[in-house]
Amino acid sequence: MPDYDLSTMEYLDNYRHRVDAELDRRIACHSASGRLQETMRYSVLGGGKRIRPALCIAAACAVGQDIDAALVPACAIELIHAYSLVHDDLPAMDNDELRRGRPTAHIAFDEASAILAGDALQALAFEWLADAPGVEMQARLTMIQTLARACGHNGMVGGQAIDLESVGKRLTLTQLETMHRHKTGALIEASVRIGALTAPGVHTGSLNALTEYAKALGLAFQVQDDLLDIEGDTEIIGKPQGSDLARAKPTYPALLGLAGAREHLSSLLGYALDSLEDFGPEADPLRAMADYVVARTY
Amino acid sequence: MPDYDLSTMEYLDNYRHRVDAELDRRIACHSASGRLQETMRYSVLGGGKRIRPALCIAAACAVGQDIDAALVPACAIELIHAYSLVHDDLPAMDNDELRRGRPTAHIAFDEASAILAGDALQALAFEWLADAPGVEMQARLTMIQTLARACGHNGMVGGQAIDLESVGKRLTLTQLETMHRHKTGALIEASVRIGALTAPGVHTGSLNALTEYAKALGLAFQVQDDLLDIEGDTEIIGKPQGSDLARAKPTYPALLGLAGAREHLSSLLGYALDSLEDFGPEADPLRAMADYVVARTY
Repeated sequence: MPDYDLSTMEYLDNYRHRVDAELDRRIACHSASGRLQETMRYSVLGGGKRIRPALCIAAACAVGQDIDAALVPACAIELIHAYSLVHDDLPAMDNDELRRGRPTAHIAFDEASAILAGDALQALAFEWLADAPGVEMQARLTMIQTLARACGHNGMVGGQAIDLESVGKRLTLTQLETMHRHKTGALIEASVRIGALTAPGVHTGSLNALTEYAKALGLAFQVQDDLLDIEGDTEIIGKPQGSDLARAKPTYPALLGLAGAREHLSSLLGYALDSLEDFGPEADPLRAMADYVVARTY
Repeated sequence: MPDYDLSTMEYLDNYRHRVDAELDRRIACHSASGRLQETMRYSVLGGGKRIRPALCIAAACAVGQDIDAALVPACAIELIHAYSLVHDDLPAMDNDELRRGRPTAHIAFDEASAILAGDALQALAFEWLADAPGVEMQARLTMIQTLARACGHNGMVGGQAIDLESVGKRLTLTQLETMHRHKTGALIEASVRIGALTAPGVHTGSLNALTEYAKALGLAFQVQDDLLDIEGDTEIIGKPQGSDLARAKPTYPALLGLAGAREHLSSLLGYALDSLEDFGPEADPLRAMADYVVARTY
């Protein structure tokens, strides 16, 4: 597994601060219901790692754009991620009471507020994308198509449905990957593609290479998540360690063993980095993100 | 209250058949999870009145467009309406077991499937709008902005949050109207505006007049809903008669009395029709819709 140096964390910290500030500013606007707005702010501004926005910005950088063009699309993607966590945590779904070390939204507020906040965050993501400053009209439409597909019945939501159907079942590696490609992979892939779409006339070849990178990284992210569930520290990962095992959720270590899962992670990382071989130093933020994803401890 | 003749029902029937066929065809595509897709189909194809799609198509007609240009936007709006019903019916929200005379989605399937189907339907609405055939690029973006605002925290979802906070409280007429303007009014207004946006270069004056029409009609729709809850037949309205009263939900008849509510309905209808005075026979479908909304028995 590669080392990651300070500069990786510098990229990430820089991106995260910009994203956090923009999210905070944008989500402060008036809502019809004060409680709804509080639940939305609580759900979005809860100190996430902002991996998807960082990937979006890093992809924009890889095609020669700067952070400004990708900032609003990156924030829109984070809204979708935040809404999915709020809904996934609900009693009828994963029934989680702890997220990022804090009570989940339906515990901190109530179930109805959590459902509604998730619903409103999804709508807000599309509102922000439709208005994204500095992005051409056709690119905004393509971003909306990309995000809608990635988070819908053939993407993230479809993956969560497969996940719920899979609890207690023994999946093959192929079935496990199908689930993850939908549940987390689709949004990670969309983050990278949407970042690249900020560049006017981005080449199909570049877009395809970045997509390959994102697909491998999305799976690597999930393998690392599964490993952290076994090896991680509850206080650091922000949720009870071993919670996947306790729920009999299918995982990579359960299928491949610990050593096998680590090897799989390393090979996915290699594939992700190889996909970037035609890019110069402008793709260094993406390379750093790949290193970060597999080296992260929470 | 005006009579409505056969031609009103002919408009509506014609629109509804086109919308139902398009929804059926479009929502048949492959989903990652069979159960999710079933829940989505059950939620959308359950025989709704399709009032919002009809308003969208009738508004397109009023600005000289034909049904084809408005069909996909109309279907997208119906997806949003269907998702909102599925989520509103959940145990943590209105806890309804019956809708359109059938078990609600979380009863027919399960709560997790109902939450996910709602989430996926919202995403699908934006996917369809982004791709709407025969609509100019800028108009598609404006439609997406319009729909996202109408169904988000300052629109439909915000209104549902106000509604939940209002149960058991005594609201003033102004507070009741604020709730309804968000909860149902915003999407009805968006339906009309989106229909009008199908016409390239639609005039601001026309758009404003249609918006006034839609605002009044949205409130009239809700007054009639409240009246039907008291006067309607359970078998015809598809939910238990008197269910608002049983929940101590604030209603127009509770605030204004039965006669007062009927008078309010009639004045809203008059205002809606007056808003269309600069339109010729091309706005007859909209006029017919207004008559239908107040004369409907379910």
